[in-house]
Amino acid sequence: MRSEQNIGKTSAYSSMSLVSKGFMSNSRFQSFDDPRPGVALSTRLDALRQALREREVTGFVIPHADQHQNEYVPPCEERLAWLTGFTGSAGLAIVLAREAALFVDGRYTLQAEKQVDRALWSLCPLVTPPPETWLTDHLSYGDHLGYDPWLTTSAAARRLAAACAKKGAELVALDSNPIDALWLERPAPPLAKVVVHDPQFAGASVAGKLKAIIEQIDPLKVDALVISDSHAVAWTFNIRGGDIAHTPLPLSYALIPKHERPTIFIDSRKLCPETRDHLAQSAEIREPEALVPMLAAVAASCGDIALDSATAADALSRLITASGGRPIHCNDPVALLKAVKNPTEIAGARTAHRRDGIALARFLAFIDREAQAGKLSEIDAVETLETFRRDNSALKDLSFPTIAGSGPNSAIVHYSVTRKSNRTIQSGDLLLVDSGGQYEDGTTDATRTIAIGTPSEEMRDRFTRVLRGHIAIARAIFPDGTTGAQLDSLARQYLWQAGLDYDHGTGHGVGSYLSVHEGPARISRLGTTPLRRGMVLSNEPGYYKNGSFGIRIENLQLVVEALIAHPTRPMNAFEPLTLAPIDRRLIVVDMLGREEIDWLNAYHHRIENELASYLDHTTRAWLEQATAPL
Amino acid sequence: MRSEQNIGKTSAYSSMSLVSKGFMSNSRFQSFDDPRPGVALSTRLDALRQALREREVTGFVIPHADQHQNEYVPPCEERLAWLTGFTGSAGLAIVLAREAALFVDGRYTLQAEKQVDRALWSLCPLVTPPPETWLTDHLSYGDHLGYDPWLTTSAAARRLAAACAKKGAELVALDSNPIDALWLERPAPPLAKVVVHDPQFAGASVAGKLKAIIEQIDPLKVDALVISDSHAVAWTFNIRGGDIAHTPLPLSYALIPKHERPTIFIDSRKLCPETRDHLAQSAEIREPEALVPMLAAVAASCGDIALDSATAADALSRLITASGGRPIHCNDPVALLKAVKNPTEIAGARTAHRRDGIALARFLAFIDREAQAGKLSEIDAVETLETFRRDNSALKDLSFPTIAGSGPNSAIVHYSVTRKSNRTIQSGDLLLVDSGGQYEDGTTDATRTIAIGTPSEEMRDRFTRVLRGHIAIARAIFPDGTTGAQLDSLARQYLWQAGLDYDHGTGHGVGSYLSVHEGPARISRLGTTPLRRGMVLSNEPGYYKNGSFGIRIENLQLVVEALIAHPTRPMNAFEPLTLAPIDRRLIVVDMLGREEIDWLNAYHHRIENELASYLDHTTRAWLEQATAPL
Repeated sequence: MRSEQNIGKTSAYSSMSLVSKGFMSNSRFQSFDDPRPGVALSTRLDALRQALREREVTGFVIPHADQHQNEYVPPCEERLAWLTGFTGSAGLAIVLAREAALFVDGRYTLQAEKQVDRALWSLCPLVTPPPETWLTDHLSYGDHLGYDPWLTTSAAARRLAAACAKKGAELVALDSNPIDALWLERPAPPLAKVVVHDPQFAGASVAGKLKAIIEQIDPLKVDALVISDSHAVAWTFNIRGGDIAHTPLPLSYALIPKHERPTIFIDSRKLCPETRDHLAQSAEIREPEALVPMLAAVAASCGDIALDSATAADALSRLITASGGRPIHCNDPVALLKAVKNPTEIAGARTAHRRDGIALARFLAFIDREAQAGKLSEIDAVETLETFRRDNSALKDLSFPTIAGSGPNSAIVHYSVTRKSNRTIQSGDLLLVDSGGQYEDGTTDATRTIAIGTPSEEMRDRFTRVLRGHIAIARAIFPDGTTGAQLDSLARQYLWQAGLDYDHGTGHGVGSYLSVHEGPARISRLGTTPLRRGMVLSNEPGYYKNGSFGIRIENLQLVVEALIAHPTRPMNAFEPLTLAPIDRRLIVVDMLGREEIDWLNAYHHRIENELASYLDHTTRAWLEQATAPL
Repeated sequence: MRSEQNIGKTSAYSSMSLVSKGFMSNSRFQSFDDPRPGVALSTRLDALRQALREREVTGFVIPHADQHQNEYVPPCEERLAWLTGFTGSAGLAIVLAREAALFVDGRYTLQAEKQVDRALWSLCPLVTPPPETWLTDHLSYGDHLGYDPWLTTSAAARRLAAACAKKGAELVALDSNPIDALWLERPAPPLAKVVVHDPQFAGASVAGKLKAIIEQIDPLKVDALVISDSHAVAWTFNIRGGDIAHTPLPLSYALIPKHERPTIFIDSRKLCPETRDHLAQSAEIREPEALVPMLAAVAASCGDIALDSATAADALSRLITASGGRPIHCNDPVALLKAVKNPTEIAGARTAHRRDGIALARFLAFIDREAQAGKLSEIDAVETLETFRRDNSALKDLSFPTIAGSGPNSAIVHYSVTRKSNRTIQSGDLLLVDSGGQYEDGTTDATRTIAIGTPSEEMRDRFTRVLRGHIAIARAIFPDGTTGAQLDSLARQYLWQAGLDYDHGTGHGVGSYLSVHEGPARISRLGTTPLRRGMVLSNEPGYYKNGSFGIRIENLQLVVEALIAHPTRPMNAFEPLTLAPIDRRLIVVDMLGREEIDWLNAYHHRIENELASYLDHTTRAWLEQATAPL
């Protein structure tokens, strides 16, 4: 079968596309550079304040964001790092005439303290209280606070405006970002080649997707839809690119009028003739600069235009309003369509996970063989895993930087090893490895926690509680309409019984050769979207003992019809996609019920069945004992 | 101890208050009259249409509601029944010039078909699609649809207005309800005596409660709060009454300015000198008619006035706006304060549940003794249970009409036995009894499902799944901040595994000698309020096989601190309040885990411990076997 052939060797298609995409090379996907130490950036802050005075505003807001509210942003959008020195992936700065503050969340507090000149910047929490509280405390009557409406959603702008109003200050949208004029060595926007996402992976035509989108927005009674999320554009038009780290995404916009031909806005330098022909079949192709005049024209003639409230820049809403139209903020109508995978994408996901499972099995066997000697570092682990994944040329990228934390580092949920933090893996450690690959047929994401030497009783108790939660989600059967919020506690119940918990969601949606974090469904107390057959979600309960050890067990799983005789209503279940043994040495078997043991044995049996024939002898022998029944 | 003395005999206080409240008598709390068959009410509908023409509107909306959006309404508010003949507890009618429609939910479809003249009325679903859809289909351009803003919330009015706008029609607030002018024999408003809720039961002073309310509304930055929910007024001012069936509630409003003395609006004929003195200590007392002019004056002078969006009549918002103020719709600030019971209310709840447990034990023993002979009817069961509860003179009322369904009737979730539906309880039946009492120290609500003769294997399997869900909630331990939505699936998981479910929430909040259904917390997919220590919630999973049998196991339970050594964060648990054995004959012991068996045995042991000394010899012997370890 095609899918099985694709597991172990490079198909003609993928080796071609490796060249044509041009972003694959022998260099590694992951580097280990430490965050730069704080540099004296006072001249930049001074220059910005001077520029603000020239524009007659008394302050400016600098979010870590691009025009599409992407999770990762290209280097040319790293204004926050340019100005403050802080290189974390989330944050916000506010510069006023005399004060300047940088807002970061808990995981970045230490890093920000090291990177930022504390004489210039106050460090404040990003979430509680929100930056608006700081604003209200520091703004003065008559202040004019500037913001870049291309980097800010309308909802965020409303919150800023409300904070200004409380002090009699005013929020002012700036025509251009003053930092861009000061940032002389600013990198060019990314121009990675755009490729057609082959029908053998996409499984649905652009025409069919456009029809589904039109049906989706019909109840909104709008005349057109602006797609501001580049993931949604890529899905709709069956294209992929490389403008963003770890996500095969071409930065782009689309405008979809209800009764006319859509337009895609994309830098033509990224298009090869093949891609251009493909796009031209279903859309007009325009440069990104054409978005503003065309949207203004459509708003003037049509009226109501739908926008995704989570990713659409406030600039788009302002433009529509200024042109006489009405912006209708809604939940991205493409998100739900994209989240429900079609049969081709599902088959691809199974293939990608078998392929990824081979690398994971080799890696887990390698760790069991090598780590106890105390000579492997966390970076060795990351590099070895990347090497094993790269051994299959179908790998396009990692789906995110591998997290490999040992000992106390395993307790840091978002740990990313650097040369400085790198630690030798030692007997008595837990090693937590969270990683994934981008393949054209699917995106993977798996976490395993491995005992190095003999684990403590506490580690085994906690691991077993996490495992029971993982199995409770994996075995869950639930009716149509059930949301992730309803399932979340199944994963936590055994930790709760011991007075423990974890401070992250239980599961996120995953794209099909797109972002490893994809909405709208998730398994979390905030997950209000009903889970639907065809959705791919992670199942990743954990436990973290600060300074000591961390545990996470993560599979991707597919929502499928439950196999039940005579259900009284449509019932759904999860099918695990990830194929990697769960460390039996960390399980207290007496804490498991019969049905839990049965689940684990059946899961391990399936892994053995699906992977063994692709493995070298050493790994195969390892897999046999690692998947032996409990 | 005081609380124990109160269980078995009538205290001086309660016998006094029985007389003074004047609504307790030898007549039963529950009657069994069948709904009246449909009567020819065409003259009423004709008269209403004539009245609408005189007021120059082309239609009118008649909800089943009073000014406070109470769950039960007094007879003078039964306009829907007067007009249509339909006597159900929920519904809505819309009369247009040529069409008229009655909207009822699934449980009332059959009853409405019998009661309503189908030549005059179309019968439509109440929820999906909503009545607004029917409106949009039947309104014409230029129509004027009247509504009574005292019986409609602002949110409901907005929905009606939006439906009108779609057809170019207009929604018009009427100054008075045209039905009231036509309804000649309309009953007078209820005037049940108001009594002081004794500090020994209330546990907190009015002054303290008012202070807490002012703190609660402080973040809203309003100048005053209108309390439109009479439950909230009763709680705030430590008063009780009898205007509404099954709820010791005096109909009333209150206005709480931030910096001035509050005013309570209540019919003075309901007040005795003692109650008047009590109220006068903390508030001005005015007749209900004084609300409108006083609110107008406050709105004119103050500005922003907070209103509970769920119960405040649209008339209040309109009045505030018309007077130059601004209505601020919010979640009832009293609801959360009222839901978290104080130590006195908690002690009272425990006492009330012991007292109620004696009646339940006598009843369950009686059913086991008598029902198998095939000579008891459902009405016999209801009357016997009421008699046993009445044997303790502390009983003030049932907290709702007892549900006692046998055989196929047990599968009807909202079953209420009537002379016509009454059925002889037979061997092979399940008997489902859902009942509760109103006591000054607490409100109870419990459901037990009893095997009559030998239950089928299917019944025992289903019962055991429901029981496992009940125990999963009862044993749940969960951190601060956990919502009812997160816990809901714990109760359903074992039914889901068999492709089964139940179509109601798992739990609702319960008042303290107030409504048996109380917000804001609940255990349901819609429960977004975090559960807090001191809240009382029901735990009532069920299973209903249409036409065959029904199962529900319901305890009230208190949110308490979990007893865990070294929790990593504050953890909560449930303490069962209800004391009534769960039928061991319906349990498949092999389906239970060790911890579930331990829970049930411990619960039964506690019942035996707490109740045995209060029981007659026969009941005591029955209780001993009913609570024997599994």
